[in-house]
Amino acid sequence: MALLDEDRLFPVDGKTRDLARALYADIKDLPLISPHGHTDPRWFAEDQPFADPAQLFVTPDHYVFRMLCSQGVALADLGVPRVDGGPTETDGRKIWGLFAENYYLLAGTPSRMWLDHSFQHVFGIDRRLNAETADWYYDHIADCLAQPEFRPRALFKRFNIEAIATTEPATDDLRWHRMIRDSGWNGRVITAYRPDGVIDPDMAGFADNVALMGQQTGFDTATWAGYLDAHRARRAYFKEFGATSSDHGHASARTEDLPQNDAAALFQKALAGQCSPEEADIFRGHMLTEMARMSIEDGLVLQIHPGSRRNHSDEILRTFGRDKGFDIPGRTDYVTALRPLLNAVGMNRDLTVVLFTLDETSYARELAPLAGVYPCLRLGPAWWFHDSAEGMRRFREMTTETAGFYNTVGFNDDTRAFCSIPARHDVARRVDCTYLATLVATGRLAEDEAPGLAHQLSYGLAKRAYKL
Amino acid sequence: MALLDEDRLFPVDGKTRDLARALYADIKDLPLISPHGHTDPRWFAEDQPFADPAQLFVTPDHYVFRMLCSQGVALADLGVPRVDGGPTETDGRKIWGLFAENYYLLAGTPSRMWLDHSFQHVFGIDRRLNAETADWYYDHIADCLAQPEFRPRALFKRFNIEAIATTEPATDDLRWHRMIRDSGWNGRVITAYRPDGVIDPDMAGFADNVALMGQQTGFDTATWAGYLDAHRARRAYFKEFGATSSDHGHASARTEDLPQNDAAALFQKALAGQCSPEEADIFRGHMLTEMARMSIEDGLVLQIHPGSRRNHSDEILRTFGRDKGFDIPGRTDYVTALRPLLNAVGMNRDLTVVLFTLDETSYARELAPLAGVYPCLRLGPAWWFHDSAEGMRRFREMTTETAGFYNTVGFNDDTRAFCSIPARHDVARRVDCTYLATLVATGRLAEDEAPGLAHQLSYGLAKRAYKL
Amino acid sequence: MALLDEDRLFPVDGKTRDLARALYADIKDLPLISPHGHTDPRWFAEDQPFADPAQLFVTPDHYVFRMLCSQGVALADLGVPRVDGGPTETDGRKIWGLFAENYYLLAGTPSRMWLDHSFQHVFGIDRRLNAETADWYYDHIADCLAQPEFRPRALFKRFNIEAIATTEPATDDLRWHRMIRDSGWNGRVITAYRPDGVIDPDMAGFADNVALMGQQTGFDTATWAGYLDAHRARRAYFKEFGATSSDHGHASARTEDLPQNDAAALFQKALAGQCSPEEADIFRGHMLTEMARMSIEDGLVLQIHPGSRRNHSDEILRTFGRDKGFDIPGRTDYVTALRPLLNAVGMNRDLTVVLFTLDETSYARELAPLAGVYPCLRLGPAWWFHDSAEGMRRFREMTTETAGFYNTVGFNDDTRAFCSIPARHDVARRVDCTYLATLVATGRLAEDEAPGLAHQLSYGLAKRAYKL
Repeated sequence: MALLDEDRLFPVDGKTRDLARALYADIKDLPLISPHGHTDPRWFAEDQPFADPAQLFVTPDHYVFRMLCSQGVALADLGVPRVDGGPTETDGRKIWGLFAENYYLLAGTPSRMWLDHSFQHVFGIDRRLNAETADWYYDHIADCLAQPEFRPRALFKRFNIEAIATTEPATDDLRWHRMIRDSGWNGRVITAYRPDGVIDPDMAGFADNVALMGQQTGFDTATWAGYLDAHRARRAYFKEFGATSSDHGHASARTEDLPQNDAAALFQKALAGQCSPEEADIFRGHMLTEMARMSIEDGLVLQIHPGSRRNHSDEILRTFGRDKGFDIPGRTDYVTALRPLLNAVGMNRDLTVVLFTLDETSYARELAPLAGVYPCLRLGPAWWFHDSAEGMRRFREMTTETAGFYNTVGFNDDTRAFCSIPARHDVARRVDCTYLATLVATGRLAEDEAPGLAHQLSYGLAKRAYKL
Repeated sequence: MALLDEDRLFPVDGKTRDLARALYADIKDLPLISPHGHTDPRWFAEDQPFADPAQLFVTPDHYVFRMLCSQGVALADLGVPRVDGGPTETDGRKIWGLFAENYYLLAGTPSRMWLDHSFQHVFGIDRRLNAETADWYYDHIADCLAQPEFRPRALFKRFNIEAIATTEPATDDLRWHRMIRDSGWNGRVITAYRPDGVIDPDMAGFADNVALMGQQTGFDTATWAGYLDAHRARRAYFKEFGATSSDHGHASARTEDLPQNDAAALFQKALAGQCSPEEADIFRGHMLTEMARMSIEDGLVLQIHPGSRRNHSDEILRTFGRDKGFDIPGRTDYVTALRPLLNAVGMNRDLTVVLFTLDETSYARELAPLAGVYPCLRLGPAWWFHDSAEGMRRFREMTTETAGFYNTVGFNDDTRAFCSIPARHDVARRVDCTYLATLVATGRLAEDEAPGLAHQLSYGLAKRAYKL
Repeated sequence: MALLDEDRLFPVDGKTRDLARALYADIKDLPLISPHGHTDPRWFAEDQPFADPAQLFVTPDHYVFRMLCSQGVALADLGVPRVDGGPTETDGRKIWGLFAENYYLLAGTPSRMWLDHSFQHVFGIDRRLNAETADWYYDHIADCLAQPEFRPRALFKRFNIEAIATTEPATDDLRWHRMIRDSGWNGRVITAYRPDGVIDPDMAGFADNVALMGQQTGFDTATWAGYLDAHRARRAYFKEFGATSSDHGHASARTEDLPQNDAAALFQKALAGQCSPEEADIFRGHMLTEMARMSIEDGLVLQIHPGSRRNHSDEILRTFGRDKGFDIPGRTDYVTALRPLLNAVGMNRDLTVVLFTLDETSYARELAPLAGVYPCLRLGPAWWFHDSAEGMRRFREMTTETAGFYNTVGFNDDTRAFCSIPARHDVARRVDCTYLATLVATGRLAEDEAPGLAHQLSYGLAKRAYKL
């Protein structure tokens, strides 16, 4: 029994399905461009085997453990580490068993499809995961992980990844990227510049991070001019390790364009830890515009990922820390928020700003109209909770009519779950082919135009937008 | 001629339709679980015949009279009673005629399908309602209502209702429920605890209601501690009449978790009628958290129904009173609003909080992410204006991928229109089978997994979530 | 090769497609009612040939040039005139070439379908537009435009327009409308009353416009009473030229109902240029209620078009002026905003208020519930960015279940692109037939009810709502 339907995500109507299937056949084997994600560069640097099935599939995947948590499973029982180093489950087989008996909870979710895809395509499994098959699964996957062809670099090749970007803080020493480069391995693993820790005055350690950036670059980051120069230097350093983009995970899409004197004064307050919440927000907003100006100079693509209310549960943050599935989206305004940046640099053709959202109400109302007119703007793909069949369909249906296809940038997997990467790209390719086939079947696109667009959506647009 | 298409609401694609039809055949005759509604317990207590066709179908159904009103029909001409007792139409046949000649206005609405369902299945009618058939309809339905098999208890059995909850104010004496119990009739009609009148300082009669609750329970409700104890006692009293849930119809989802001293002080201001609007809102929000704490003690499921801007028209409120179709939804935030309650008790596995919304933009953005991680949270079904084919489809499409099926609670009819209950459940069952069939047909669910899920969505989840 | 698929926008399922096709066949040749638009009355007054293909299709169409702009084409290179009269491209063939080589960017957008419709149906073209065919296209269209049958009045007849409304400022002398009337031509071109310039204190020239309205009417517009009388007189003047509606393009849907003394005092502040932004907003809001009161007197339909954040780019506004594709929608509240007007006049059956939105989240949540109960309210069609296949589908799916069909007003093209008018109506007719066919195929509408509704949606509702 195959875990996956070969025609999954294609239209139910026979003729439209045939169109989708034909489009998909043409592009399904294109290399993967993964310009935005969170895999660990250390994997590719050291190329050590993954620890065990639970460490590969359960403990680090917040999509999985949040669903189990929602039905009463304790995070500690899934091996999620505690901030205080206190006891959590460490027996991989036990964690796996708990996962297996609750696997049915994932019915209808994208995680289910990603996992089944990994089980079938990466590990050659043909039976369904449940309490009965749990041990068999565990043994089988553990056996595989011990084989050389399941090491990170081997999987990288097998997954047909042409380029993958990781994400590192501005002050990261990029040691793993250096190790990859020095190793002579020809896999293209690049970094991306994530300066939240040196831009957000509310982040723990902000002033220390800024000071560290000064040491790293030799600029006097106690001054506004030196601070900007240090950014320039770190961006250049990241570019040495392949970076083509920066990434900014602010709570809102707020931008500002302050006079330089005001920005400098606010920077001093931020360093002194004296910003009010509103001033901190203004500073973050202003720094997006500064980042955009640097992007015009050095060509890094600016990615804005707003809208998540992070760490919604105090108890979980206290016990397990950040990124534990308790980040909840909220309403996000773009029209007013982006105006200062767009008025400053929005008509510049040397700038690319990729916008993401967790608030789908902005697709048709705000993002498509903005991206459909400003030369610098492009729309990132359906993101996070919306990295799914319905989420991707809504993205296309709500953006294409106003922004077209060429103001979008293909697919980003945005994941730290390595084995899910081919699964996620496959879902995106299928959904996009289904969308194109539907346009053809309803006379909204000529049949001879669809294959070229399928190629663009699967490969070309990402490669071009991210300069890969 | 049948009024209803046997395959209504199934997919148009032949193969997918076959899948849906098979799923539906399996579950269509399951008993109805109706854990949240507004039928009148007096019907079941006294078991008297319904008055006349207009009193059954038109005058009490705000879905019907709001549509006629929107096209210029006066509420008084439909027999809607005036607050001042002034004259309104009382001739059932005349009201019915006005309804019949305007019945075409309901084309494409769920009311049309519920009414046709009632006409066909409850009254065996095979011709369409319009001006020509109005009198025939009136006579036929009036004749039926005079028969014993159309009395409330007989219909209850015929509708295959396993359990139905009505909703009573916290200070209700539950006399009709007592009469049902004392009658020895075996229909399961239970109450639900609706304490808005003793929780909302802005409600007319708030202090009197609180005082009455004191008399009913023997606690000194002039004190904060006594007030909470009185709630506990009334909840226990409601549980004696089968209650398994409380229900809270606040304008927003705001919750608060005040220090007890502050809550006590605010309660005194509320009793004295001295709360500012903001303070009244804080008090309501805090009381949701107190109710949640009591739910952990006594097991009542907490239902939050926010988002309606009640009584939008001053003239209608003045003339005809509340609940006259002029309640209009508005934007509703959940992420920030629920945080105090969730931080207080959200990780407790002994608590069930069911969330409803009239703001569909919150489904994918807020509600599914919240319910997909907090153990206490479950999503109520598509509600009120969204209790419809498209509304239910959007609910599934926008919540399943993030929250799965098991964080939802099946269907609630939420109605005071008794004959519409089987019709509404039937719509929900058909739409859910169509959704499941579509997942199967597009390879997102294995075919052997669908029947069990259909059973859960139609019956099991409601029974379990509401402890029935 | 036909540019258009004959079955475009019909359902993909065979049986449902047959239903849609049959419905469409019945109504596709009905005359066009165009009650809201922005064609230039001068065209019909002078009946001169259109200048050249670029002036017809590219330079005035913000849907087209905004997409090219979004991919880096300069507006000046498309011949968009500069505010300062500075140089822009004037060579029609060059502009056309730039348009042709970028035509692929419009794939999947409604503009592509409207343009192909015009090319095929108006100009008899059977090859696709691209860089290779650009010159051929230019020559062919230019040749056509030189023929008498491509002059405005001939096209008007050929397009089967029964009535078309243009939009003129309150102080317009309506000279072109007078010229049309005096010419004896029998095409029905009517005006609509657009008083933004004499209602919005923030508009440049507000006080001068009000003074001019005084001169035009003989009323003393320096007084509140005279100002209102002048509105009445101008409305009557517009009615002489066929106006059946007024149109109001405010940023929000805010309404107010001030005491007359307060309104009079605010008007004096507005004339003196001393309104704060908030006061200006209150004044605009109050004037909507005054306009509604006048509508009850004189029968003009009141159209409210809120939600666009105009002129988002300062640079584009400075260089090219208003209406250059940089108007971006934002969140729009209706429930609170409309309440003052609705409390003042909302139950009046002699009033028709047509509501439009750019914020689709309000369809199911706010607009359908409001229009489904207030006698004065009707919903305008999917508008501007949503005048598209997906936009229209969402409109029907999200409004019909609550507001029905009869609280909607058919289609408005709202365009200044003359040749796109039949194309736009054709899209609306196809999408509505598809929607109705889907309701029939899924048992939500009886098959014999669909043709009458198709007629209403295509023709009857617009004619009745706008009194044409």
